[in-house]
Amino acid sequence: MRTSIATVSLSGSLTEKLTAAARAGFDGVEIFENDLLASPLAPEEIRARTADLGLRIELYQPMRDIEAVPRDEFARNLRRARHKFELMGRLGADTVLVCSSTSPLALDDDALAARQLHQLADLAEEFGIRVAYEALAWGRHVNTYDHAWRIVEAADHPALGTCLDSFHILARGGDPKGIEDIPGEKIFFLQLADAPLMAMDVLQWSRHYRCFPGQGGFDLAGLLGHVVRAGYQGPLSLEVFNDVFRQAEAGPTAVDAQRSLRVLQEATGSATPPAPVVPTGIAFAELVTPDAEPVAAVLDALGFIRTARHRSKPVDLWQQGEARVLLNTGPAARREGTSLAAIGLESPDPAAAARRAEALLAPVLPRRRAPEDVPLDAVAAPDGTELFFCATDRPELPSWTGDFEQAGQRPVDSSVDGSVERIDHLALTQPWHQFDEAALFHRSVLGLAAQESVDVADPYGLHRSRAVTNADGSVRIALGVGAAPTDDGTRPQHIALATPDVVAAARRFRAAGGRLLPMPANYYDDLAARYEFADGELAAYRELGILYDREADGEFRHCYTETVGRVFFELVQRDGGYRGYGAQNAPVRLAVQHTRRPPY
Amino acid sequence: MRTSIATVSLSGSLTEKLTAAARAGFDGVEIFENDLLASPLAPEEIRARTADLGLRIELYQPMRDIEAVPRDEFARNLRRARHKFELMGRLGADTVLVCSSTSPLALDDDALAARQLHQLADLAEEFGIRVAYEALAWGRHVNTYDHAWRIVEAADHPALGTCLDSFHILARGGDPKGIEDIPGEKIFFLQLADAPLMAMDVLQWSRHYRCFPGQGGFDLAGLLGHVVRAGYQGPLSLEVFNDVFRQAEAGPTAVDAQRSLRVLQEATGSATPPAPVVPTGIAFAELVTPDAEPVAAVLDALGFIRTARHRSKPVDLWQQGEARVLLNTGPAARREGTSLAAIGLESPDPAAAARRAEALLAPVLPRRRAPEDVPLDAVAAPDGTELFFCATDRPELPSWTGDFEQAGQRPVDSSVDGSVERIDHLALTQPWHQFDEAALFHRSVLGLAAQESVDVADPYGLHRSRAVTNADGSVRIALGVGAAPTDDGTRPQHIALATPDVVAAARRFRAAGGRLLPMPANYYDDLAARYEFADGELAAYRELGILYDREADGEFRHCYTETVGRVFFELVQRDGGYRGYGAQNAPVRLAVQHTRRPPY
Repeated sequence: MRTSIATVSLSGSLTEKLTAAARAGFDGVEIFENDLLASPLAPEEIRARTADLGLRIELYQPMRDIEAVPRDEFARNLRRARHKFELMGRLGADTVLVCSSTSPLALDDDALAARQLHQLADLAEEFGIRVAYEALAWGRHVNTYDHAWRIVEAADHPALGTCLDSFHILARGGDPKGIEDIPGEKIFFLQLADAPLMAMDVLQWSRHYRCFPGQGGFDLAGLLGHVVRAGYQGPLSLEVFNDVFRQAEAGPTAVDAQRSLRVLQEATGSATPPAPVVPTGIAFAELVTPDAEPVAAVLDALGFIRTARHRSKPVDLWQQGEARVLLNTGPAARREGTSLAAIGLESPDPAAAARRAEALLAPVLPRRRAPEDVPLDAVAAPDGTELFFCATDRPELPSWTGDFEQAGQRPVDSSVDGSVERIDHLALTQPWHQFDEAALFHRSVLGLAAQESVDVADPYGLHRSRAVTNADGSVRIALGVGAAPTDDGTRPQHIALATPDVVAAARRFRAAGGRLLPMPANYYDDLAARYEFADGELAAYRELGILYDREADGEFRHCYTETVGRVFFELVQRDGGYRGYGAQNAPVRLAVQHTRRPPY
Repeated sequence: MRTSIATVSLSGSLTEKLTAAARAGFDGVEIFENDLLASPLAPEEIRARTADLGLRIELYQPMRDIEAVPRDEFARNLRRARHKFELMGRLGADTVLVCSSTSPLALDDDALAARQLHQLADLAEEFGIRVAYEALAWGRHVNTYDHAWRIVEAADHPALGTCLDSFHILARGGDPKGIEDIPGEKIFFLQLADAPLMAMDVLQWSRHYRCFPGQGGFDLAGLLGHVVRAGYQGPLSLEVFNDVFRQAEAGPTAVDAQRSLRVLQEATGSATPPAPVVPTGIAFAELVTPDAEPVAAVLDALGFIRTARHRSKPVDLWQQGEARVLLNTGPAARREGTSLAAIGLESPDPAAAARRAEALLAPVLPRRRAPEDVPLDAVAAPDGTELFFCATDRPELPSWTGDFEQAGQRPVDSSVDGSVERIDHLALTQPWHQFDEAALFHRSVLGLAAQESVDVADPYGLHRSRAVTNADGSVRIALGVGAAPTDDGTRPQHIALATPDVVAAARRFRAAGGRLLPMPANYYDDLAARYEFADGELAAYRELGILYDREADGEFRHCYTETVGRVFFELVQRDGGYRGYGAQNAPVRLAVQHTRRPPY
């Protein structure tokens, strides 16, 4: 199906919007009237620009408060419509959106609405224009898609059809099944928007919180299924009013938008990108740092061994159990300081994983960094993190470890008390305007499942966090975002390491000279009030700075190292199927981290 | 009445919160448990710190999910409560907040709730502690203040009373009149929060959007009246969960909070600060600039005459009709560039206006800048703009013009076609986190009325704007805020000048070499579609870049100069009682301004 996007969904001038839409692979656009009014380009110039960019103008919108009004008012409305139809001729747009009236002048009279829409369609026909009539969820008398359709049916004019808008239909909780009763050729247009499920005023919800399909909570695949079965042949067009997208760069937003439509089409079977290849583990986490020593000291105290070195690059492999950390002192570090730059995802089929990522518009990174390197499939996540699709020491596939030479040391026996078994999760900070997209990206490109978003109170603002995981929890990535754009890129990232015995791990780390983040005594007094612990247990937590959380069945014990650059490590012990990340304790940890360094 | 604030209402560490509350003049605080848990200070140290700061700990909060539960669960809850009562002893807090249960374990059994609260109160009494039971608006079974009171009444224990929370009461639309039926001595505590009127999930509304009294839409004065009439003797305590306040500096937020309580007490007659002295006009607007020439050229082309110069400072007075603009090339300009730094408000009683401002905690500025200057009362607005309370050439009062010497030129005759009569309005950009407070400040300190807040779509984000005015519209200030914190302080400000004939004024400006902001042709095509104009009228607008808006009775015509530094001028013609500011046209103007300079 053709893809389209309303210019109102993107930030910037009309020219910027059109350019971004074309570059992201859209076939067409809806021209939002205010974008045209504010543009210095004449309609003919806009027409030429869109044609040069390979875009079709699928819709001109919106025309408001037209129908079911007293005769004088309708005469004025027809006069206005004639002006707009002339404009559309100059623009080369052949379909106009008419929204159901919200005017206090509008009468609750379907027959009058139908008669006047018929007259409007007569006029439109003279200009070769089609009128698509849509029910706004807050229309004065017409606010459901089936009501709008009944009026269109009654008006019975070849130049008059209906426009369906997923937001207006689903926000009111209407059953979209009736769409299948509308003849496909009378559905002139389909506008798609998702939205987070919120109990709030529909108009405010619509104007500020719409998002791209898959970023919210609506069943857009179900709705699209009905529309396709009705026989709709027009474009899938995104119309998203979103305060954050208004501020974000148009280029990346348009790519996210196009990706959302590809995923939606896959869900309804109308497109078949390569199937997702869900990663089965974390092969490695790669830290870049201008100075290896401080991070190496922490890794060493955590019990990691430097087992290998890259053949041609200043990259060391540190290992313990199945946990592998690459320490890269190459040029990237000079730009970023110490940070988590890349993740190796253990993939059943790295090449297929990369093909899917590419089909879903993830930026593909070069397969070989140097001629002698093992080829590696990699893409960039929305936050810039490099995601490598890897095989680790599997005979049938080239292993990324092939680029490394043994450094003579063997990884330690992971049965030692307090040893690290593997990476439990990685916590990444997302750009402020990319939080919802980050979850959609990881779900759609990597086939991970997104958990609920949680709020976390930092002393200086509210953070949000949302985890994406595979089914067995062997891949867990916590996507966090700060309170405001000003937080961008300065907040810490961390690597959480799984151990079966966090008390032993913490003791071992301390004995090896590592410094754990101390937690306030008040926190432990509260734990004592809330839970009963075995003798000595709470005392050990208090001594070591171990935090505790409990769910229905499971328990979570965790502690933190001091931060180096933007990065710190967490030691975690999960028991009894605990699925979370200790969000309950995050405010305490954040407060302590603030006291350890200047506020961001 | 004593004033108090919950630590959760302020940003930062517990120490920062306590310090800010004390400096702003609060008598006490509520200690929010999470703030204590995250603090490195022991309870005894917090007790000492609050005492040193002159603060009383009015409340420890919250204790959750205590009552109406099965016996085993209640035993665990009592154990938890004992720990907390011991903590409160160390802290020196004698009242604890118990919120009505939200637990799935809670039973719908008022008798059980009363019995268990009685037992809790027995335990509390041993520690000299009082229990204040509050209905959360989303409590599982108890969610109205009268229901909570019935349970307290049935429990009948001297150490058990109720806590009233304005948000929980008013968010559910309950009638607060019944508060008067509660004996005053059984109202153990009163928490106050306002909120914007929004149709949304109450829990989300409460957690993210609460604000200080007068910043939202609740009738807090009405509620407080009932509480006072019931005989309540405790403190007025603010408990505000607000995403923006969490990020803002604690010091100014605490001052805003304290101001809101003073205004609230005034509204209920329980405090009597000096009465507001509503300004009767704009005496002058003061621009600072490092280079007078570009602004002087615009003023000159607008028809202003440089009529006087300050005796001792590099400040020129430009005048036309009753519009006066000061152009200050003194040291401040080096910091700020060209910007609108001060407003002279014509005041019936400048000294009384300043006394009120001071009583409401507006930062008072020195009365004399130099020994020979006329004394001038001035305060700083939340955005840093200096507000001068002035008299202009009134015999009974010293006039600010006394500091100026005639420059030999007389102001022009304002009956010339297209001349400027006065300043119509001033548009100021507010810091992002101060938008709601800015309106409250201008309302309470200056006695102006706030109009509705409107959203304005800029190509790169959504702006909000809210005007404050006096009754006859001779003082109008439009307070604007950008889409995000990153916009702070970089957006333009402007001075709008009233003329009876904007076409003539625009022509005169252009003839004098001024450059008007050109508006896109598409805008005028749209005007032609929407309205019918007299012959030549629209052509004149198109030629000159004049924008047009129409309301029920009134019309508004306006055009803009190019921007110098952060400042531009607007020429406006209001007819027929038009009350707005052309918000409808602002997106077009903003888009054009973006094309004229690099994006912010």
